[in-house]
Amino acid sequence: MKILIVYAHPEPLSFGRALLDRSVATLMDCGHEVVVSDLYAMGFNPVATGDDFTQRRFPDALQYDREQKLSSQRNTFSPDIQTELDKLLACDLLILQFPLWWFSVPAILKGWIDRVFVNGTVYGAGGMRFDQGGLKGRKAMLALTTGCFPEMMESDGLLGQRDVILWHLHHGTFGYSGLQVLEPFVGWSIQYTDVDKRKDYLDAYEARLRHIEHEDTMPTHTLTEFGPDWRLKPGIEPRTAGHRRSTQQG
Amino acid sequence: MKILIVYAHPEPLSFGRALLDRSVATLMDCGHEVVVSDLYAMGFNPVATGDDFTQRRFPDALQYDREQKLSSQRNTFSPDIQTELDKLLACDLLILQFPLWWFSVPAILKGWIDRVFVNGTVYGAGGMRFDQGGLKGRKAMLALTTGCFPEMMESDGLLGQRDVILWHLHHGTFGYSGLQVLEPFVGWSIQYTDVDKRKDYLDAYEARLRHIEHEDTMPTHTLTEFGPDWRLKPGIEPRTAGHRRSTQQG
Repeated sequence: MKILIVYAHPEPLSFGRALLDRSVATLMDCGHEVVVSDLYAMGFNPVATGDDFTQRRFPDALQYDREQKLSSQRNTFSPDIQTELDKLLACDLLILQFPLWWFSVPAILKGWIDRVFVNGTVYGAGGMRFDQGGLKGRKAMLALTTGCFPEMMESDGLLGQRDVILWHLHHGTFGYSGLQVLEPFVGWSIQYTDVDKRKDYLDAYEARLRHIEHEDTMPTHTLTEFGPDWRLKPGIEPRTAGHRRSTQQG
Repeated sequence: MKILIVYAHPEPLSFGRALLDRSVATLMDCGHEVVVSDLYAMGFNPVATGDDFTQRRFPDALQYDREQKLSSQRNTFSPDIQTELDKLLACDLLILQFPLWWFSVPAILKGWIDRVFVNGTVYGAGGMRFDQGGLKGRKAMLALTTGCFPEMMESDGLLGQRDVILWHLHHGTFGYSGLQVLEPFVGWSIQYTDVDKRKDYLDAYEARLRHIEHEDTMPTHTLTEFGPDWRLKPGIEPRTAGHRRSTQQG
């Protein structure tokens, strides 16, 4: 497989870096082709602006997604976006690795998504989303480290259910673009772990990655399961966190 | 009330800007004190690094949240962070206004959260979170514009339930910090609306803001409802999206 790892951590001496290094060594040892975008090392610009396009369809007022669509047709993205987009389109598996900050990705990685997951290529008009998304046929996985304990991310846990917390990434970003989603790898409460526990995490990640191409993806709904009103068709049972029907009135 | 609006939109001619302008005019007309952080106009830096601290406790390897804690004690944040933190601590109501990008805030706003919602002030050790969070006594609201239709954000909708999509912001960011959360204001599918519909949205936002101080906040759980295992105590019914128990096995 061709694997793109997009990595966002400010500290080269971090456990996150050790996790990245182990993953690269493991995947290469398995014969995969690995490309890393180390966003902090690259000084990646996460702020979407009109400078992201070398030509503009609407030069007077920026409509970001419509300019993305034009640039998808004409290949007129700024070079830093085009480089990342080429890496993304070339991969079979995308891994986003990051420390969980405020229940989500660090800003530098959010900006990579904002700027590289472009309209007209990654998703677009005419139903190019979810199982018909521009990245269909590829898989994706989150690899994250947290400050919290796993019990906190159970459905009755302090922080709420893991799949609800990560919904905006799993469903909203990966799923929307056509990526099939693998279970996330989570290194829990890293700042409270000792050397042995960290070694266990590195070994566990390696063990998973050695067989990553055989893993099942997480359940999802296909576009055809939704009606013209954008709701699940009658009789189709919701089977994911975000589609679960509320039993309570808030 | 003192109201801080943090606004993230790259285009001064956007509907988002019109919404901001209407909100400022309305709130001032009601006698509130309004401060706006226009992140794009300010050129706000969203990327968290070691430069965010003028003193370092661990200069050899960055542990971002631990440096935040020290800087909270010594007031040694970089000036751009301290300025925003002062605004945040001075407000009674925080409004984040943004276009919904990839089911979340634009990167420039995520970076404002990453850098300004600091350990040791906004949350911290000794249970300083949720109803005991550093921002307790204050309220917060999301004001967002979308590309999608409201039906898509129902529990059986294409994108998943609204409160699941926004969980990482409502619960993970606002709630965690002690902010009581107001219902979001949503301008749906703005690029498909005509002038009349946009005017309706502006008027609806104004009407809400004129009485915003009397609105009820969304339901949440208090820290005391969780046991020492970080799970809801026996007999306490989950009443929010992220605490809803799964009826299905994924």
